[in-house]
Amino acid sequence: MENFIFQAPTKVYFGKNQIQHLPKILREHGRKVLLVYGGGSIKHNGIYETIQSLLADEFQIVELAGVEPNPRVDTVRRGVALCRQHGVEVILAVGGGSTIDCAKAVAGGAFYEGDPWDFTQDGSVIKRALPLVTILTLAATGSEMNWGGVLTNLETKEKLGFRNPLLIPQASILDPTYTFSVPAYQTSAGSADILSHLMEQYFDRTSGTQILDYMAEGLMRTVIENLPVALAEPTNYEARGNLMWASSWALNSLIRSGKAGVWSCHPMEHELSAYYDITHGVGLAIITPRWMKHVLNGETLPYFVRYGKNVWHLTGSDEEIAHHAIQKTYEFFLSLNIPMTLPEVGIGSEKLQEMAQQAVKHSEISTKAFVPLQANDVFAIFEASLEPMVF
Amino acid sequence: MENFIFQAPTKVYFGKNQIQHLPKILREHGRKVLLVYGGGSIKHNGIYETIQSLLADEFQIVELAGVEPNPRVDTVRRGVALCRQHGVEVILAVGGGSTIDCAKAVAGGAFYEGDPWDFTQDGSVIKRALPLVTILTLAATGSEMNWGGVLTNLETKEKLGFRNPLLIPQASILDPTYTFSVPAYQTSAGSADILSHLMEQYFDRTSGTQILDYMAEGLMRTVIENLPVALAEPTNYEARGNLMWASSWALNSLIRSGKAGVWSCHPMEHELSAYYDITHGVGLAIITPRWMKHVLNGETLPYFVRYGKNVWHLTGSDEEIAHHAIQKTYEFFLSLNIPMTLPEVGIGSEKLQEMAQQAVKHSEISTKAFVPLQANDVFAIFEASLEPMVF
Repeated sequence: MENFIFQAPTKVYFGKNQIQHLPKILREHGRKVLLVYGGGSIKHNGIYETIQSLLADEFQIVELAGVEPNPRVDTVRRGVALCRQHGVEVILAVGGGSTIDCAKAVAGGAFYEGDPWDFTQDGSVIKRALPLVTILTLAATGSEMNWGGVLTNLETKEKLGFRNPLLIPQASILDPTYTFSVPAYQTSAGSADILSHLMEQYFDRTSGTQILDYMAEGLMRTVIENLPVALAEPTNYEARGNLMWASSWALNSLIRSGKAGVWSCHPMEHELSAYYDITHGVGLAIITPRWMKHVLNGETLPYFVRYGKNVWHLTGSDEEIAHHAIQKTYEFFLSLNIPMTLPEVGIGSEKLQEMAQQAVKHSEISTKAFVPLQANDVFAIFEASLEPMVF
Repeated sequence: MENFIFQAPTKVYFGKNQIQHLPKILREHGRKVLLVYGGGSIKHNGIYETIQSLLADEFQIVELAGVEPNPRVDTVRRGVALCRQHGVEVILAVGGGSTIDCAKAVAGGAFYEGDPWDFTQDGSVIKRALPLVTILTLAATGSEMNWGGVLTNLETKEKLGFRNPLLIPQASILDPTYTFSVPAYQTSAGSADILSHLMEQYFDRTSGTQILDYMAEGLMRTVIENLPVALAEPTNYEARGNLMWASSWALNSLIRSGKAGVWSCHPMEHELSAYYDITHGVGLAIITPRWMKHVLNGETLPYFVRYGKNVWHLTGSDEEIAHHAIQKTYEFFLSLNIPMTLPEVGIGSEKLQEMAQQAVKHSEISTKAFVPLQANDVFAIFEASLEPMVF
């Protein structure tokens, strides 16, 4: 295990009707609130109305609406301008990871002289940030309990991460009932994102990390068991609750603290999203099993054997378990009725080479990944994603 | 899953030589430090000297030494007096759970008009506390990352818990090398404490808590696999590190948040320690498998089956798995060469009835436990602890 510093200070209000605490939570930070949200689903499911009725008397609300599924730096700039114009004191993000990521960039941008896109190059330029409170409506990115985010720049075709400890939410309200209305497609994509976060951190060569590996395996099992229930019964509170809490723990730094490696599938998927604006979780579901197959070799075999045994309860020879584990991963995603090839999401072979180059350029995948991948490796994984997998 | 509010704000510095951060950590809170420690082992292993050399130039240190293995309220009173006398600004606890628990009570006592023993009746009387920083030297109680503690009153023969969010450590330094010199007996007792914390929270009837149960199982497996390694090779960094981090996560409230039940074995053991001043973890190891056997019935069977399958990888009929799981638990403790009957720790049958009454009086074990236990149940468990178990 490597040395690390761990801190997850976000105060999480988990459960039914925890939104009742919202006025008390916001009051600690101020009365002028920037309300950040996405495409308006919170107006259909009643959350918007509840917020208005809870806050109307005491708070002054400015709105940044229409945050995109892959949030754009233009929207961040718009939010920063609103903060300055209205003297915003606290940001309330209501939505999934995209909305929260956007709100984080706005929180940092409010006190930053330059352009928020700079954060993707060096998050440490953020020296001060507005306090952020979130209400989560989609179990996926874990942004509700960590200090990172991802922004998209459509002009430069870039989708890049940013991070700074100042951006961690002060408080997050996690009410599983708010995810009852999430459609099957988004529920599946969100869970694929959670699983990918866990796998990115789990497949790592640092030794002596049993505690982290067992926790990651437990979180993977949680998703694998609860997702089919949530899809069959969208209002199953326990299934939605388990997925929601798993999203936070998959990426609040517990599972990676003590590990040394960098991620593989996210850097590849970010190119797909940047070029084609596809759903992040679906891109991850497509890439992950192909990546597994590409990196399975004599050296990585033990990691896949452990994964197969502890996550999928497989038995057999080591080689059988490893191959079977990859197949189970693929079949699990396939069972969700989400696209599992690139053509199904509108991606052909045209830009695969270019995107492969970019993935290597934008990340440390070629030097520090579980298995370092050069552009030709990434291209091979992209190419394998054009066709269904055969086992 | 029940509603809950989760927050674990302690900043954890984990790994080799993280003590280097100590001056920076303390400086945030002040320059007048109360150094709290136990029987002096930190003078033999070099930690005391390191602290002195790191702090000598800049900080003024007052010492509260000799904290007992079951910390006594008298010692807390002594610490409170020192804080007032010297205008202490921050408390540095160096040791295991007893030292940290004592330091927490001192932290709360410093600003409290009455007697610190009051905290065991109602922790909410604490309205303000000195900031607390800890350096952990024993993997056991989890006190390094939570806001509770246990105090012993030898006059009244009481050993009772106290808690208040203000008492949570601001920062904790977890350097696994500091546990290299912990003797086998204490290493085993500490791990028995960790396992007991996990089991107390794991055996609970709240539905829909898979995520918590998987994490608890992973932490149990972590202890079960790493403890024998740490006993065989006391300077095995990875084994010591896994045990240390497991101690924090077993009791920083993650595993219980969302569950409704109360504990069973700790209230029973606290009477043994209060009457006979035995090692807490050993008392737990003795009681736990007898408690399991006592509460196993048709209703609780599924919980023991899950435990047997996921923690001990057992197969067979449900009844076989459940019984075998209890046997495995007993045999695991037995393999540690710690006393596994009450007479071995100097406890006979004389006060079992009295202690059983007290356990019920001092806790909610008779109403809210996994299986509610009346005084006669507790007595039966105590009585079964007089003899070795037979399977």
